[in-house]
Amino acid sequence: MTTRKQLSEIAAYIGGTVCGDGNVIITDIRGIDEARAGDLTFIANPRYKKKLKGTGASAVIVSSEIKKSDKNLIIVKDPYTALAKTIALFYPEKRDPKGISDDAFIGEGTLIGEGVTIYPGVYVGHRAKIGKGAILHPGVSIGNGAAIGEDTILYPNVTVYRRCTIGKRAIIHAGVVVGSDGFGFANPGRENLKVPQAGIVQIDDDCEIGANTTIDRGTLGKTWIKKGVKIDNLVQIAHNVIIGENSVVVAQVGISGSTKLGNSVIVGGQSGIVGHIEIGDNVMIAAQSGVHEEIGPNNIVAGSPHMPHKDWLRAQACVPRLPEMRKTLKALSQKIAILEKELEDIKR
Amino acid sequence: MTTRKQLSEIAAYIGGTVCGDGNVIITDIRGIDEARAGDLTFIANPRYKKKLKGTGASAVIVSSEIKKSDKNLIIVKDPYTALAKTIALFYPEKRDPKGISDDAFIGEGTLIGEGVTIYPGVYVGHRAKIGKGAILHPGVSIGNGAAIGEDTILYPNVTVYRRCTIGKRAIIHAGVVVGSDGFGFANPGRENLKVPQAGIVQIDDDCEIGANTTIDRGTLGKTWIKKGVKIDNLVQIAHNVIIGENSVVVAQVGISGSTKLGNSVIVGGQSGIVGHIEIGDNVMIAAQSGVHEEIGPNNIVAGSPHMPHKDWLRAQACVPRLPEMRKTLKALSQKIAILEKELEDIKR
Amino acid sequence: MTTRKQLSEIAAYIGGTVCGDGNVIITDIRGIDEARAGDLTFIANPRYKKKLKGTGASAVIVSSEIKKSDKNLIIVKDPYTALAKTIALFYPEKRDPKGISDDAFIGEGTLIGEGVTIYPGVYVGHRAKIGKGAILHPGVSIGNGAAIGEDTILYPNVTVYRRCTIGKRAIIHAGVVVGSDGFGFANPGRENLKVPQAGIVQIDDDCEIGANTTIDRGTLGKTWIKKGVKIDNLVQIAHNVIIGENSVVVAQVGISGSTKLGNSVIVGGQSGIVGHIEIGDNVMIAAQSGVHEEIGPNNIVAGSPHMPHKDWLRAQACVPRLPEMRKTLKALSQKIAILEKELEDIKR
Repeated sequence: MTTRKQLSEIAAYIGGTVCGDGNVIITDIRGIDEARAGDLTFIANPRYKKKLKGTGASAVIVSSEIKKSDKNLIIVKDPYTALAKTIALFYPEKRDPKGISDDAFIGEGTLIGEGVTIYPGVYVGHRAKIGKGAILHPGVSIGNGAAIGEDTILYPNVTVYRRCTIGKRAIIHAGVVVGSDGFGFANPGRENLKVPQAGIVQIDDDCEIGANTTIDRGTLGKTWIKKGVKIDNLVQIAHNVIIGENSVVVAQVGISGSTKLGNSVIVGGQSGIVGHIEIGDNVMIAAQSGVHEEIGPNNIVAGSPHMPHKDWLRAQACVPRLPEMRKTLKALSQKIAILEKELEDIKR
Repeated sequence: MTTRKQLSEIAAYIGGTVCGDGNVIITDIRGIDEARAGDLTFIANPRYKKKLKGTGASAVIVSSEIKKSDKNLIIVKDPYTALAKTIALFYPEKRDPKGISDDAFIGEGTLIGEGVTIYPGVYVGHRAKIGKGAILHPGVSIGNGAAIGEDTILYPNVTVYRRCTIGKRAIIHAGVVVGSDGFGFANPGRENLKVPQAGIVQIDDDCEIGANTTIDRGTLGKTWIKKGVKIDNLVQIAHNVIIGENSVVVAQVGISGSTKLGNSVIVGGQSGIVGHIEIGDNVMIAAQSGVHEEIGPNNIVAGSPHMPHKDWLRAQACVPRLPEMRKTLKALSQKIAILEKELEDIKR
Repeated sequence: MTTRKQLSEIAAYIGGTVCGDGNVIITDIRGIDEARAGDLTFIANPRYKKKLKGTGASAVIVSSEIKKSDKNLIIVKDPYTALAKTIALFYPEKRDPKGISDDAFIGEGTLIGEGVTIYPGVYVGHRAKIGKGAILHPGVSIGNGAAIGEDTILYPNVTVYRRCTIGKRAIIHAGVVVGSDGFGFANPGRENLKVPQAGIVQIDDDCEIGANTTIDRGTLGKTWIKKGVKIDNLVQIAHNVIIGENSVVVAQVGISGSTKLGNSVIVGGQSGIVGHIEIGDNVMIAAQSGVHEEIGPNNIVAGSPHMPHKDWLRAQACVPRLPEMRKTLKALSQKIAILEKELEDIKR
């Protein structure tokens, strides 16, 4: 069944202004290259602006930067926000019927809320709590005494270790591990005596955790992912890390033990952050950085070891010129030797 | 039961030429250090050439670069290709009997081909299609409406989200996640409004995906892994990425959203590629690179930020010499100051 | 039920000396920031020394570096070792009752030791061996002919491929994959002919493997993790790698095929090591290094490409100064040109 909406209707829904024919009928949303007649597309990233003219779409969501076009436009403040709303309109989530499968294991003393969906092959440990409306996909394993909040979704093969807690409306993607032992060994490389990891992981409301990400439990106390944090795939969060509200951690980042990130921190992909440091609010860390010491609030850094982003840009521009610099240095040394010699001759 | 083959028989099978005694009996294949009487070994990597003399093997597969030896040889064009065939000869795959376990869940409206193997603990969602001869190991979870091609193998605990498709003869290793939500949030670090991920992942025929790799579904349209692509373990492929035919992506690489790789691209381990760019056919990217902008076909690059591989080699050679360069620079500055002073004196 | 211990009792148990009031009652252990009356805390990392004065704890485990304090102390040789013992005292592991779930699949010809715990949703392949006291959590999949040693714990959703072996007292965290195919293709980027991976993985006694780590089987022979090795989360170990006894591999490291690490090697997080090389005993590799050639025993290296750690520190200190160096170089060139000119004038 196809969704059919007038452009003006969509514009009203997403709070935008039509420029062009508001009566045109939209049946789908597609990327700017794939879109054709009947489709709505969007320009969220400025590098696609040049594609506006050539798109086959019937209409385009754009920011107010674009003043004029022969295409039908919906002009909005933030096209990406508008896109989010439009996709939700055209692709409402379909869910399987609620209920608890007979092929799931439910331990003793559990508290299971109303309207949950527990698929076959789920394991819910003893004394665990599953909030109302939560969805546990096949292969999910919930340890003893763990708690999952209301309307939270755990995709297949997620593991939550004993006593860890996840808040409301969280989305935990397939293969995520919450609460594995932190990596703590006394006398490392020699005795490797295991330090028992007796703490937990606490993930607050409205977080999203990407596929196959791992979050270790605290040695004592907790590893804490605060409200609204979004973590991408294959990220490593070590024991007793704290990530402040609304922070965003891109794929394959590693954060070492006991490090604290402030609120609204953005960590670029494949970066690493050393343990036992604090990163202030609103810090932005570029991809592939290596952060070795604390960073005050509102800084933008890059590089490994990290430095202010501006310095990094200038320093990196020099790297390909290093061979030329070395050559120049050698040439100058020779010239100076000649000058010294000549001056010596003159003085004599 | 041991496999027993004459050396000449093996040579004929793999298309090589015997140099030495073709009647020697071979009962196993082993690495050059471990091989002993009765074993066939191989030199596929030139750095093992020096080990030819000392090996205990009864015979050695080599390239035509090796002209003479007192060992029995099979001379072939490409020893690694020959090794592939020889291993297949000595270690034929043994499979469990076909059939669908009573302990698997099969949804409504599914289409299951002939001769499939579905192990206990597998979940097949509603309206999913499983091609004939496919093998679904324990803990595999197939979302509603997803499709798995003929003779494809899914190892344990693989998750395929709703509507994603995998082609024929693909090999998907344990823990792989296909179709998790792309990482898209409007107003990141602040509002973090989720952009629904309404697209799919399409993996074409003859691909292999390494253990615990994650491939996100498109925001709209698809993330597309084309025919013959081989991806190693723990790789992150973001939403709407396209990887061209026969490309090879080594372990722990991350490719950001909407980036397109051409055909036969090789991406070295732990590299990262920024989003929204194109990488041409036959490009080679060295390990640990950071690719920040588009690369035309047939280039070889390295470094973070990336540069031509040749430039990178020369630049990196300078890095350890930086302290010496700084020292020289300081010394030259002083010498010049002296020269200037002296010249001033002379002129006066 | 709260644990209640006298400080002197704890000191005796962990082999330390009380400085202060040995009669004080301890009911819990907490981090130095969270601790309050009744708690024991610790200073294992020197950067927390300054927090000693302000802690609310009733007593503190410290090293003999701290001579005096108005707090009650337990002075020990190694606070981290003492912490390990104290946590074990306060937080003894509680295990679910032993037994084999009816909802687990146990193959034919298996050998299952006494006192094992096999949870619902476990798959044990044919001819597999499970040592006595082993614990297999939900979703664990053991391939045909694989062997798990005595008292080894496999957390949820671990996959062990056919014929691989794990020793005694090992701890394998959730989502780990042992024995996936090594990444071997002849004529890569073109034909991509799969080299069958006929070897195994052997993990020896007392190893711990972090969540979602992947260890590929040998092409021939074995990938070998020796006794006492500790591997963190999301690490990639390629085919035929050998890791020597008691080595420690931090999160997100990648080790390429056939590389051999000696004993007591420590590899920092996110480092990569090229294939076919040897790393000597006691080598330390800093985080985010790129190791491209062999390293003799007892070396400390850093950087990508790696260099001695001391050289790296000095070289990296120069990087932010590169723009200034270039500027100086340009200025010196101009000064020299002027000097040359002036000297020419004088000589004329």
